[in-house]
Amino acid sequence: MSMKSDSVAMTSLAGERKQGTVGIFGTGDFGRSLGLRLLQAGYEVVFGSRDPKNSALVPKGSKVMTHTEAAQMTQVIFIAVQRNYYHFLTSLTPALEGKVLVDISNNLKRGQFPQSNAEYLSSLVPGASVVKGFNTVSAWALQSGALDASRQVLVCGDDPKAKQAVVDIAHSLGLSAQDRGSLGAAGELEDIPLQLFPNWRLPLWVATGLTAFFFFYLLIRDVIYAYAEKGQDISYRIMITLANKVFPIVALVMLSLCYLPGAVAAILQLYNGTKYKRFPDWLDRWMLCRKQLGLLALFSAVLHVVYTFIISIRYNVIHTSDTEVITQIKKNQSVPFDNAEAWATDAFLSLGVLGFAMFLLLGITSLPSVSNALNWREFHFVQSKLGYLTLTVCTTHCLLYGWNKFLKPSTYKWFTPPGFMLCLVVPCIVLILKLILSIPCIDHRITLIRNGWERPTKVQSSKMDAFLERGTTL
Amino acid sequence: MSMKSDSVAMTSLAGERKQGTVGIFGTGDFGRSLGLRLLQAGYEVVFGSRDPKNSALVPKGSKVMTHTEAAQMTQVIFIAVQRNYYHFLTSLTPALEGKVLVDISNNLKRGQFPQSNAEYLSSLVPGASVVKGFNTVSAWALQSGALDASRQVLVCGDDPKAKQAVVDIAHSLGLSAQDRGSLGAAGELEDIPLQLFPNWRLPLWVATGLTAFFFFYLLIRDVIYAYAEKGQDISYRIMITLANKVFPIVALVMLSLCYLPGAVAAILQLYNGTKYKRFPDWLDRWMLCRKQLGLLALFSAVLHVVYTFIISIRYNVIHTSDTEVITQIKKNQSVPFDNAEAWATDAFLSLGVLGFAMFLLLGITSLPSVSNALNWREFHFVQSKLGYLTLTVCTTHCLLYGWNKFLKPSTYKWFTPPGFMLCLVVPCIVLILKLILSIPCIDHRITLIRNGWERPTKVQSSKMDAFLERGTTL
Amino acid sequence: MSMKSDSVAMTSLAGERKQGTVGIFGTGDFGRSLGLRLLQAGYEVVFGSRDPKNSALVPKGSKVMTHTEAAQMTQVIFIAVQRNYYHFLTSLTPALEGKVLVDISNNLKRGQFPQSNAEYLSSLVPGASVVKGFNTVSAWALQSGALDASRQVLVCGDDPKAKQAVVDIAHSLGLSAQDRGSLGAAGELEDIPLQLFPNWRLPLWVATGLTAFFFFYLLIRDVIYAYAEKGQDISYRIMITLANKVFPIVALVMLSLCYLPGAVAAILQLYNGTKYKRFPDWLDRWMLCRKQLGLLALFSAVLHVVYTFIISIRYNVIHTSDTEVITQIKKNQSVPFDNAEAWATDAFLSLGVLGFAMFLLLGITSLPSVSNALNWREFHFVQSKLGYLTLTVCTTHCLLYGWNKFLKPSTYKWFTPPGFMLCLVVPCIVLILKLILSIPCIDHRITLIRNGWERPTKVQSSKMDAFLERGTTL
Repeated sequence: MSMKSDSVAMTSLAGERKQGTVGIFGTGDFGRSLGLRLLQAGYEVVFGSRDPKNSALVPKGSKVMTHTEAAQMTQVIFIAVQRNYYHFLTSLTPALEGKVLVDISNNLKRGQFPQSNAEYLSSLVPGASVVKGFNTVSAWALQSGALDASRQVLVCGDDPKAKQAVVDIAHSLGLSAQDRGSLGAAGELEDIPLQLFPNWRLPLWVATGLTAFFFFYLLIRDVIYAYAEKGQDISYRIMITLANKVFPIVALVMLSLCYLPGAVAAILQLYNGTKYKRFPDWLDRWMLCRKQLGLLALFSAVLHVVYTFIISIRYNVIHTSDTEVITQIKKNQSVPFDNAEAWATDAFLSLGVLGFAMFLLLGITSLPSVSNALNWREFHFVQSKLGYLTLTVCTTHCLLYGWNKFLKPSTYKWFTPPGFMLCLVVPCIVLILKLILSIPCIDHRITLIRNGWERPTKVQSSKMDAFLERGTTL
Repeated sequence: MSMKSDSVAMTSLAGERKQGTVGIFGTGDFGRSLGLRLLQAGYEVVFGSRDPKNSALVPKGSKVMTHTEAAQMTQVIFIAVQRNYYHFLTSLTPALEGKVLVDISNNLKRGQFPQSNAEYLSSLVPGASVVKGFNTVSAWALQSGALDASRQVLVCGDDPKAKQAVVDIAHSLGLSAQDRGSLGAAGELEDIPLQLFPNWRLPLWVATGLTAFFFFYLLIRDVIYAYAEKGQDISYRIMITLANKVFPIVALVMLSLCYLPGAVAAILQLYNGTKYKRFPDWLDRWMLCRKQLGLLALFSAVLHVVYTFIISIRYNVIHTSDTEVITQIKKNQSVPFDNAEAWATDAFLSLGVLGFAMFLLLGITSLPSVSNALNWREFHFVQSKLGYLTLTVCTTHCLLYGWNKFLKPSTYKWFTPPGFMLCLVVPCIVLILKLILSIPCIDHRITLIRNGWERPTKVQSSKMDAFLERGTTL
Repeated sequence: MSMKSDSVAMTSLAGERKQGTVGIFGTGDFGRSLGLRLLQAGYEVVFGSRDPKNSALVPKGSKVMTHTEAAQMTQVIFIAVQRNYYHFLTSLTPALEGKVLVDISNNLKRGQFPQSNAEYLSSLVPGASVVKGFNTVSAWALQSGALDASRQVLVCGDDPKAKQAVVDIAHSLGLSAQDRGSLGAAGELEDIPLQLFPNWRLPLWVATGLTAFFFFYLLIRDVIYAYAEKGQDISYRIMITLANKVFPIVALVMLSLCYLPGAVAAILQLYNGTKYKRFPDWLDRWMLCRKQLGLLALFSAVLHVVYTFIISIRYNVIHTSDTEVITQIKKNQSVPFDNAEAWATDAFLSLGVLGFAMFLLLGITSLPSVSNALNWREFHFVQSKLGYLTLTVCTTHCLLYGWNKFLKPSTYKWFTPPGFMLCLVVPCIVLILKLILSIPCIDHRITLIRNGWERPTKVQSSKMDAFLERGTTL
């Protein structure tokens, strides 16, 4: 969809005028890719190497010289050398005085060294301005321009001018750049390329745990029960029937888990009488992964929906249906039309459809580009109002599923409740809490607290005053 | 999906070097959140307060002093005070001379004051450079960094250097910033956080109106007719059968409403002989909400499609089908296979599938990040060519639905046409207009007009000349 | 979804303070639209015209004068004149000395002139600083602010200050701007508005070719075979049955075509013993359109899925099913439940559902805004690991479809293999290659090569050394 990614290299190739000289220490893979790209963008490139005569590897058009010579020729030097070798730079301190050193290094794992590579470099060459940057860009992206990810250069450093010089280079290579503050942030920039969906870890564990639990629970209640008590082999049901029970349960429980922490936080704030007391850590972590919980819930809901759509083309469904018709004819009975059943099943299905459609809307608005186009009020409206509506509709959908099953003894095989009853527990708790929190007097108190009001305790001079100082109450 | 949002606060916490001093007038909720965030980013923060001794509330590490003292220590001062209290600043004019004042205030409703808060501030302290900004960012977003929305700081102001200072602060807090021009734009920036989907209002009214009309129309024709004329209770059909008639109708009518204003505009341009005459207001508003009309149409289409997918698992459908088979057997008839019926129904379904798939493509290309990746020609191609193709396919889908029903008298219950006939009116008008406008001689004239040509009227010196001055005709 | 697009014009209208004077040569459509927008943003606008007295067309508030007079009054001049007329500027060289000329022109087709318009302009007026820009913005977008596409101004030029001046103007008009390097890139910028999905061309040809081939292949094997050999007219099957065979085949083949070039590239790298040898052109082009291949495959998969969902409401399916029940009853047989068949069909369907869900995830992560939020490692993980898992699941889905058909002679009508067998060829090759390339010793060698290692050939001094110089191996 982004059709222009691969044209960047060509743009740069076209620019033949020189933009200045850039130094690169190290002729490794990244150094060479970067050098090539800089040459294409019209820079002169000077490599610093321990062995300048061995220049077989550097891109054509660049020069190779000793580190000292290279340092003298340029103002900005990329350090494309492993951290282990940084110490050789101490001998170059006079030549590097006042230069901009760009630390592009990454580590193999998080927390490998107590000090970030860039800060270590800065301590070795105190006379230079160290800028951390380009480490989130891959050599492959530099070479081909074909990947969509990691086109953004994050920089940090203590010298604004040095940072600007690096940002300018990034821009002239067709990359975007973002300033991430002082050199103290370098450790974090070095961790970014090592991350693998850090915010998804907890939600994925929750989803996997719930899926596994309900799968085995239903396996025992359905397949094993049928085999043990009736001697029937209905193991084929694992593939679809069971999956189509597990996924809706997981979807509903996880959707309600998105809204539970908000309710818990409101209760805590009411109890504390202030919003300035920190939440416990588990609640903070829970609140930060609500979006991921919601998206995984949506994924389960999609699976549930698709499994539902193919019910009527399944072999056993067709066989059962045919057998039923044949049985009716043989017995010469005809089952009368049950209006209540028609209403209940149609309402059940219709609420499912509407709940799913609203859930899809929630998912779409959490796409980065869509949520960026919303203001805070709109985003809050969608995620809160529409979210609770979705939860209510989906919970009702589940309640209607069991409308005539709750009181039947046959529902409670081996004295265990069926899956759909278990999965109603959390959503019902959330909805009841929300209902209680929406009682006007409680809701008013929460609104006050969220706007900065605090329950009078000790010093209470100008607090209501302070609270009133800002116009709106975002 | 954006995994890095919550890491911003940590980045900033890591930066321990001071970046300069920032003043904040007012210790309300927003002032304190902003102060905390600035401290984390390495700034020194000085609060100005009427009662400096009461510093219980300000974040640790910041200082509290009188407004005058605070103003003397800093160059940039955030005014986190309600507009009603601005007048106290007049007494500080000497201290505020040459300072940058950032107006972050919002109002409770649009048009609350005749003059924007920032312009009012500027008139009170003419010696200072007022910059409007940060009002679209919520205190909650500043504190947690967890929300995706409203991470963009919009600034406006008359002094470029002052604006740049504010933009720099936004960047060092990890927020993006956008310059929205001179201070005259402040009123508009103040309105942004108060908006709730302003562009969706009209389309939502249209969608609700159409849905309500067709729901009651079909309720009368189907359910009430059956009860009144035949004494049947088929009220259970409301949940799905009726919904699955209303939503496709609404989808098709609203899709055609996206393309009708374009056709009307072309006719008006032909009639006026120029594109430089303004369209009437209703047409302008209609054209500006075409995207929202289209997305609501897509939403209806999705509901229609999902309702269709669950037809065969509905109780009454299964019951009717079983009853039919049993009846056939009892009567010992066998219904012969009707090739024409098979062709017509399969073509009807297939066109529905294709139309829906194309409609989905249209929806995907209207996602902000996708449409941003297209150039004008590509965007136009998709929204116009693919759009009309979708409309044509969906209209044909609807026509095929009624292929053998148009001439049956039983179709016209109580002498009213069925819903699918009513809903064909607007699409057919749009398609016929489009067909007429595509006749080469008319199309050529419209192209000329859209490229700037005007029908000769009075002064006609160098118009064709002017028209030819630019190469292409975007 | 982006609700603010149309508010830009209003923002600008509000700014009444003057921002400086901008010149526009040419009173054509684009010149006038740009002039109006500049006026709204608070600029003074001066048009240069051959016939200054004929000012009927220019927006109110702007001035019209001779080119020389206009040039003297402004620093930045937009050249809104066709390239053919550029030569008149040579007579103005003294007046244009040191001015910034913005070339906004486009051509009617690619490669119309050997030299880009901006470079030609620069050669005509060597004393001026030429900046290419605004050519990707349409006059319509400038006027209405309503379109989402093409709001980005791309600029290139040799004089950084001149570029900055143009970028500043773009920003104050509410447009975003991107620096695309030196004036040598102008030719490419001029080509951008002429592009129509250039990267989609090859994949669309492949998709169309595959669809056409399999459509006719299956038409012959199914419909024509039935007519020729059995005299049956089953032509109605073209609309859905055939489509639902063609689309899954195309989807699977195209999905595997996304992963084949990566495997071929790995083999080539192993063979060459280095990654620094260029791939053949066809492989480069293939690799650059993998994303488009994948998205077209997903589109086919969506069609397949939707066609599958409507199977049970098709006339002929219902008729066949009814007939079967009636036949069973008449013959007084009852078909026993086949557990193996139930397992196989449910497994087949369930894998299809899972494969489709994973395929959807792949599609979502290729949305620009989502992939931008991923780091390189995450993007690679999704596109490679999840991609191969999807391919494996979908291929197994297809294998299970034919599980009991491979050995039946009736499958091979007219001695040709059925479609699903043909479509298994490419995916199986890809999966086998991947399996071979995943053998530890081979995988290790590829990893080495991709990290910059080269098989020892001639000069081998410090290569392993160079390879070790950078920490990680992105």
